[in-house]
Amino acid sequence: MASEISRPGRADEPEKGGEQKPFRTLKLGTREPLRLDCGVPFGPFEVAYETYGELNEAKSNAILVCHALSGDQYVLQPPPEVSSRPGWWEIMVGPGKPLDTTRYFILCANVLGGCMGSEGPASINPATGKPYGLSFPVITVRDMVRSQALLLDALGIEELFCVTGGSMGGMQALEWAVCYPERVFAAVPIASAARHSAQNIAFHEVGRQAIMADPDWHGGDYLIHGTRPVRGLAVARMAAHITYLSEPSLHRKFGRQLQDRTTYSFAFDADFQVESYLRHQGITFTDRFDANSYLYITRAMDYFDLAAEHGDSLVEALRRTRARWCVFSFTGDWLYPTSGNREIVRALNAVAANVSFAEIESDKGHDAFLLDEPELHKILTGFLNGAARHRGFRSP
Amino acid sequence: MASEISRPGRADEPEKGGEQKPFRTLKLGTREPLRLDCGVPFGPFEVAYETYGELNEAKSNAILVCHALSGDQYVLQPPPEVSSRPGWWEIMVGPGKPLDTTRYFILCANVLGGCMGSEGPASINPATGKPYGLSFPVITVRDMVRSQALLLDALGIEELFCVTGGSMGGMQALEWAVCYPERVFAAVPIASAARHSAQNIAFHEVGRQAIMADPDWHGGDYLIHGTRPVRGLAVARMAAHITYLSEPSLHRKFGRQLQDRTTYSFAFDADFQVESYLRHQGITFTDRFDANSYLYITRAMDYFDLAAEHGDSLVEALRRTRARWCVFSFTGDWLYPTSGNREIVRALNAVAANVSFAEIESDKGHDAFLLDEPELHKILTGFLNGAARHRGFRSP
Repeated sequence: MASEISRPGRADEPEKGGEQKPFRTLKLGTREPLRLDCGVPFGPFEVAYETYGELNEAKSNAILVCHALSGDQYVLQPPPEVSSRPGWWEIMVGPGKPLDTTRYFILCANVLGGCMGSEGPASINPATGKPYGLSFPVITVRDMVRSQALLLDALGIEELFCVTGGSMGGMQALEWAVCYPERVFAAVPIASAARHSAQNIAFHEVGRQAIMADPDWHGGDYLIHGTRPVRGLAVARMAAHITYLSEPSLHRKFGRQLQDRTTYSFAFDADFQVESYLRHQGITFTDRFDANSYLYITRAMDYFDLAAEHGDSLVEALRRTRARWCVFSFTGDWLYPTSGNREIVRALNAVAANVSFAEIESDKGHDAFLLDEPELHKILTGFLNGAARHRGFRSP
Repeated sequence: MASEISRPGRADEPEKGGEQKPFRTLKLGTREPLRLDCGVPFGPFEVAYETYGELNEAKSNAILVCHALSGDQYVLQPPPEVSSRPGWWEIMVGPGKPLDTTRYFILCANVLGGCMGSEGPASINPATGKPYGLSFPVITVRDMVRSQALLLDALGIEELFCVTGGSMGGMQALEWAVCYPERVFAAVPIASAARHSAQNIAFHEVGRQAIMADPDWHGGDYLIHGTRPVRGLAVARMAAHITYLSEPSLHRKFGRQLQDRTTYSFAFDADFQVESYLRHQGITFTDRFDANSYLYITRAMDYFDLAAEHGDSLVEALRRTRARWCVFSFTGDWLYPTSGNREIVRALNAVAANVSFAEIESDKGHDAFLLDEPELHKILTGFLNGAARHRGFRSP
């Protein structure tokens, strides 16, 4: 499990003349490859990550933040070459914030299969010298977590004080506590689920079909063809984006308001603000995300089923957990609703785990975990303070 | 408002060697054109329709059934050249059914802008001799209803005993009662809404963008190019189809069951039954539906806002109604939820209309109006029997 630190990162981004993006990466799996759930021995491979705050001498104050489908490791600052966008969790992470960088060492890695410096389908396949495309192995949430464990090994962190994340980040937090019970002191899955529902899978499948229907996708080999399936990826993002918002939040934000006009165009322009907004969401996403990564990560989420990996029993899956848990859901989240989070809490209760559950009143939809939700922040701060006391950290 | 009856229909389907489909049509707007909401004088134009049962001598027993987005006039028998598919409302219409063909004359017309024989974007533009494509005028639900009124004129039907339909069919029923209060004795909108919400518009916009992103769409001129945007239309249908089903019905139908396999493929095949089902829904839809019609009809639905046409007051819109109303919603319908139907009922109450409201317990989602819902059928039968007594029909 040796590793080499490299910064700036590697040249596995063949677009636009192959410029190097200054990702901070570690080469992992150099001594022995990672055996993926699909059976493929994989590695060595790079994982890109960022850290905020200081790791204490005992290396006991690390909080691993796991990002969601379209997230990345840039929790607290803009990604390289992007200045307009803040870090995606600045509301939650920083001095005096719930994930307090004056107290904790915050670590976030781009997931395996991603497109922000970690090994993914846009990386160069060493066997061919060309971008992987669909020859990249299909990965699972468990594979993502295993690669993060190797990263922790490389950084000399034995135990995480806490693992947390929203949406797919919450799935990783769950998988962490199940796969590495001895390495997780506290676990905080937010707006997550123990498995993808038929409806979740259905929405993802629409997105994948939109990408694969785009002739510029070229069977996944678009980088070799010098194209990018931007239209398909934009449609995929638009469909997904609707599921991240609640009907009331869409209504409050847009209602039936027209965009820069007072009457209908009687054409197919974006008459309504919500149309214009969605088109913008779709197009801007294609600037920062790789279409094949979208296929791989949605697939990993659809495959996620914690119970299935343990004889179809969520209780069995969670039996070995030693973590203190705080599970969050939002009333307005119809993508990963409270009911699914309650199932997790029930299973944790069934194994007498130390678990808190908070359903936050919010009509902002699934994206609430990224937004200003004072109740979430207050409860999480309290939970982490309590956990820190139990971990023997001095009071802040 | 003269009309000419033609059957078999016209040769406005230039695909596959331009064979004629035997639609039963009437040429309307021959004396003077129909002035559309977009301002265009339109006509003459053809409307395709089907009838079931006998029109009585007084021409007072007609029930106009209005079809939904992907529906057609074939309520009770398969469309021409299709044998595998029953009529779309056979569960509701027929001898002894709620819309009893031994008692009522059931009439259903393909909407203006449709692709089953009524004038639509695939029809030949007489000005150019080529298919309209996007030169077809953008129509509204009110335009659809106005064209149906011309059809009634042609058939000599002064007053409808009842106008009904589910989803967009319900919007037409509402519009009928508002535009032609003197011609509607009873109105039964089912699983409908008085306006399209931001979320409704958003889902439609995803579908339209999927179609327009397909290079085979050719700016709407695909028939001239000898192509069809089947991939885009399939994606549009897939996205829409998810909204027609409830999460519980998807779970019950598919859960996380795999399709013809026992383990994950670790590829991008349709591993899950729900994926396979959605792909099938998408592909089969492209066999029977025109992509431009999909654009036009979704646009008409998005433009629909009954209150906006009357100073933003639903009460004002409905003030002149004389109809007896029965409004239906389904508990599991998240596309046109009970809340929106309640708004209609409240406005009807505010003008002291004769209105019944039934929220049917069903977790089948929006599509429940097409399915076996005994409570719906029972209440509708009772309502129509009562209305028939008030209309002076003898008991069956």
